[in-house]
Amino acid sequence: MDLGRSLFEIFLMFLAAKVVGEVFHRLRQPAVVGEIIVGIAIGPHVLGWITDPNDLLAELGVIFLLFSVGLQTQVSDLVRVGKTAAWVAVLGVVLPFGLGLALMKGLGSELHVALFMGTAMVATSVGITARVLADLRKTELTSSRVILGAAVIDDVLGLIVLAIVTGMAQRSISGLSIVLIVGQALAFTAFVAWVGTHVARRFSVHLDKLRLRNPGLVVSVAVCLGLSAAAAYVGLAAIIGAFLAGMVFAETREEYQLHEKVEPIYDLFVPLFFVITGTHVNLPVLLAPPVLWLGIWVTLLAIVGKLVGCGLAAWGLGRRDALIVGIGMAPRGEVGIVVALVGLQQKIITPDLYAVVVLMSVVTTLFAPPLLRWLLGGRER
Amino acid sequence: MDLGRSLFEIFLMFLAAKVVGEVFHRLRQPAVVGEIIVGIAIGPHVLGWITDPNDLLAELGVIFLLFSVGLQTQVSDLVRVGKTAAWVAVLGVVLPFGLGLALMKGLGSELHVALFMGTAMVATSVGITARVLADLRKTELTSSRVILGAAVIDDVLGLIVLAIVTGMAQRSISGLSIVLIVGQALAFTAFVAWVGTHVARRFSVHLDKLRLRNPGLVVSVAVCLGLSAAAAYVGLAAIIGAFLAGMVFAETREEYQLHEKVEPIYDLFVPLFFVITGTHVNLPVLLAPPVLWLGIWVTLLAIVGKLVGCGLAAWGLGRRDALIVGIGMAPRGEVGIVVALVGLQQKIITPDLYAVVVLMSVVTTLFAPPLLRWLLGGRER
Repeated sequence: MDLGRSLFEIFLMFLAAKVVGEVFHRLRQPAVVGEIIVGIAIGPHVLGWITDPNDLLAELGVIFLLFSVGLQTQVSDLVRVGKTAAWVAVLGVVLPFGLGLALMKGLGSELHVALFMGTAMVATSVGITARVLADLRKTELTSSRVILGAAVIDDVLGLIVLAIVTGMAQRSISGLSIVLIVGQALAFTAFVAWVGTHVARRFSVHLDKLRLRNPGLVVSVAVCLGLSAAAAYVGLAAIIGAFLAGMVFAETREEYQLHEKVEPIYDLFVPLFFVITGTHVNLPVLLAPPVLWLGIWVTLLAIVGKLVGCGLAAWGLGRRDALIVGIGMAPRGEVGIVVALVGLQQKIITPDLYAVVVLMSVVTTLFAPPLLRWLLGGRER
Repeated sequence: MDLGRSLFEIFLMFLAAKVVGEVFHRLRQPAVVGEIIVGIAIGPHVLGWITDPNDLLAELGVIFLLFSVGLQTQVSDLVRVGKTAAWVAVLGVVLPFGLGLALMKGLGSELHVALFMGTAMVATSVGITARVLADLRKTELTSSRVILGAAVIDDVLGLIVLAIVTGMAQRSISGLSIVLIVGQALAFTAFVAWVGTHVARRFSVHLDKLRLRNPGLVVSVAVCLGLSAAAAYVGLAAIIGAFLAGMVFAETREEYQLHEKVEPIYDLFVPLFFVITGTHVNLPVLLAPPVLWLGIWVTLLAIVGKLVGCGLAAWGLGRRDALIVGIGMAPRGEVGIVVALVGLQQKIITPDLYAVVVLMSVVTTLFAPPLLRWLLGGRER
């Protein structure tokens, strides 16, 4: 596709995101829902105005989103909620996985198909919830921190389950390779969170000695891009790296006005991520009856699994916060779709089951933001 | 290429740009030269660390650059220098074209080849000069405004010459098609500059009524993307649209702190454009003797053509400013390379002549910034 056409599509997606964002603000609904819906509408499967959504641009958008959320989260905040977050992550993996497995076995699927559907129901996409929390300026609540901490752990657990289940389906799993993947992921997260924070605390006071304009922004974004690429390299989601990078610079964010400087980048690129996510949804396929009925059941269990699993684990925070955590962990977003794509490519699941997972991912993604907004109160902006 | 690898290459280019930028700042040299050189070094033709430079990202970078420069240029500023700028553009097209044509005919080339080489020497890449002026905070000087105005006119003239010469080479030119292309380009520029400014003046006071965060930034960037795509559609460079969009909002930039909000985006994306431009240079081919010797002659005439042509036209500004205008109009940058690529694809010129034009484009691009910096005095930042 030539550059002129690409520019036109970026312009169109940006304009659509902002017009819909304005309308949703006025309706007191979360802009993110409008952005996904408008993406579905103008994407290749419905109106066809967007023919070639740019995934790299989307990736940069979600990286800046999680970087920005990380900037509002200090390591010490996460440590304080660490135990609760760990339980939220574990129960939020076990329950949806068990429900998915049971449903598919009950419907007569083969074991490896049922195991895979369970896995697809495990994923959490922290992007959606992070966006709602950021727009409402609620990232500093305890329940928000539990969600963000649990999302990091959840990503590592989800990776483990995916590695085991795809390995079992291909009968090619070795204990060693699982241990390696998991070890890398855990070592990466721990190393960045602890060592990174100390290094940043030690050296960030010297950033002013650089002759570059905006040294704080430049160095922290370089670290963000580097850690995102490194996270992808060890098999984690790139956005985990971006979140950790933000967290590493959270203590120095005031000094270099990092939050103010990231805001314009956020406003330009983050909405593009959600519009592009929408363009990937093939609405006609999702609405075909066999997919639709199974999809409704899978979606219900996916919601119940996270709501009950994560909610129970967070019960100590009080009923309202437990509910916020349960709903905040429910969106599967692009992570669910990516897991399903792995299953489709490795021929573990059929295209129909792929569409079921996509439906589940879309619905869990769209239902959570309005509820969160209502539970958290307050106005966006 | 998978996203993880793309992210890694973006990280690498960003890091390289900023490290080299810091070093060049300390050496009191323009960062843009360092960025291009490091791009050549890490690109696919030398070290090979970057295998797939992302052209869309580069395009967004140069769009934000010209948008930012446009924000510092009011229409009335350009009108004041309009007559001088027009002469600079015209003589800056006629002289390099004549010199290129004469050289190639003198060396025994066919007429259509000689005409095409003349055309390739006409192009001006305002990006390089704009970057130096922006880094030195000198965009508001009269000579800077002459350069920016002349660059817009030059782009239209270059387009006309290219349309005629390629048409003649293919013996397929119709007077009507030339008139159409030229008419569109002129109408677009005039319409945007005049109508756009009035519309912006009339409606920008109402932007605060939007519920979106950063309404001024969001609306002006939407206009910038739209005009860039529209400029590409009518056959102009996309960056002309971005520059005009910036100019349209120049009067309201204080009110919405547009310049402050564009700065972080500038610092992240503009250097990527220059690094990516560097990665496209095939250094080994450029340094082969036959290419090198002809390349040196073509480069010398390309510099003399702009220096004398544009300098004479700007003589009324004083000797020093005339020299600044002459040197500021000399860089051919990516525009020269794009013109050469058209000739190569349409088989008007050979791969060797293509390499000659690339060499000329690279050298004219690298020689101008240090001279401009020296003539304009002052420190970067």
